[in-house]
Amino acid sequence: MERRVRIDLAYDGTAYVGWQVQPGVRTVQGVVEEALSRLQAGRPVRLCGAGRTDSGAHARGQVADCLVATRYDDAGLMRALAHMLPEDVRPRRALTVSPSFHAQHDARSKTYRYLVETSATGDPWRRRYALAFPLPMDEPAVDAALASIPGTREWSGFTGSACRVNDRVRTITEARRLVLRPGLQAFVFTADGFLTHMVRNLVGTLLEVGRRRMGPERIEEVLASRDRRRAGPTAPAKGLCLTRVVYDAASGGASGDAEAPC
Amino acid sequence: MERRVRIDLAYDGTAYVGWQVQPGVRTVQGVVEEALSRLQAGRPVRLCGAGRTDSGAHARGQVADCLVATRYDDAGLMRALAHMLPEDVRPRRALTVSPSFHAQHDARSKTYRYLVETSATGDPWRRRYALAFPLPMDEPAVDAALASIPGTREWSGFTGSACRVNDRVRTITEARRLVLRPGLQAFVFTADGFLTHMVRNLVGTLLEVGRRRMGPERIEEVLASRDRRRAGPTAPAKGLCLTRVVYDAASGGASGDAEAPC
Repeated sequence: MERRVRIDLAYDGTAYVGWQVQPGVRTVQGVVEEALSRLQAGRPVRLCGAGRTDSGAHARGQVADCLVATRYDDAGLMRALAHMLPEDVRPRRALTVSPSFHAQHDARSKTYRYLVETSATGDPWRRRYALAFPLPMDEPAVDAALASIPGTREWSGFTGSACRVNDRVRTITEARRLVLRPGLQAFVFTADGFLTHMVRNLVGTLLEVGRRRMGPERIEEVLASRDRRRAGPTAPAKGLCLTRVVYDAASGGASGDAEAPC
Repeated sequence: MERRVRIDLAYDGTAYVGWQVQPGVRTVQGVVEEALSRLQAGRPVRLCGAGRTDSGAHARGQVADCLVATRYDDAGLMRALAHMLPEDVRPRRALTVSPSFHAQHDARSKTYRYLVETSATGDPWRRRYALAFPLPMDEPAVDAALASIPGTREWSGFTGSACRVNDRVRTITEARRLVLRPGLQAFVFTADGFLTHMVRNLVGTLLEVGRRRMGPERIEEVLASRDRRRAGPTAPAKGLCLTRVVYDAASGGASGDAEAPC
């Protein structure tokens, strides 16, 4: 009997060429599909993820769905996946959902976090997950720039050239800076959806503001001009993490978010 | 002009065959000595570390000392080291100390922390630093066993066979369990010194107590019998971290510990 299952995942993306399956390379979607396929005697599985995380980016709250035909119940599926998946890809939850649930289309909002290590020396345990930025940061300027981000806008100026989406209007509901501990900060963005490299381009611009190479009004300028060249460089993928995907209860994806402790 | 410098270090030991220099393999001491040597035109440097951490074990508060002959002052030496060392070995501080300072002999106490991940699913970001123990833990039994550890004892029963030290009396002043967050616990041990694999053997025994394969009185039995075979298995190195080394002000190593945020 086939059923649709929602699978919440956390992963260290360092060793993966991103989420999405591509021929000849190791991707997160690929290894999870392979594990699920082995659980049903080699029958192929197609997994749909809420966010297509970049090569080298991470997730603590990725959500995916797929059809499975297995004798395992949800708890058994979860245990089997935990056993079969590599250590850097961990299932958080497996949950039978409505046949109509779609992890990507039904997502009401997604939250990405970008970690920046501002300490002079760096932390060897965090080097895979945080961008090193051992420079003085003009925090009031960064916060002013952040304050100009939320809203429903056309984000072409912050979109990577690989983006094939025509409708580039998205609504950002949260854009803030957190000091997690001395020397470690996070930029947190929540939106109804993100375009290719959008978070990384926003962070790259914010860091230029932080080092006073750009003013905080640059965010508005880039939005108005829709000119990617006016924005800062694309921040490296390793600082980026998909932390949360939220669904309406009505989506059939079940209540409860995949939020993970930071 | 030669001077003695204290260097505090944090490292991810995953890619290293321990602290101590050995021919033909990559060790932490080896890469730091090599970096220091490059700073003084290839002149060899001999580094002495407070603790000889095991292959795959980590440090957030390792302390070492060496003689250097370089034009860099302490701040410059620190910056140069930060630049030259690999990302998984980070200098925390460089400080000119008394010529007589000896990072190993002058250490008054050392603290090791052992991370255990008790959540069912595991955290992909912590897999290099914590032992996965996704089992119910009899916490009162573990705490009773921990309570029997502090004191001045002969630790042969918890010492690895590779230990070449004859005097196996050490004083443990702290042995406790911390719940760092749901699903993540730490065992913390402070002593005037530790023997080969001593912490890992204590943890291995505590985890046997936790899963009720041994009773909490086993610690005393192993101590009394001095029989290594009565203790639990040696816990894997990856959970182990040297977090702190404390010196007397009189040692000439300067005040201020190398304690790092956990």
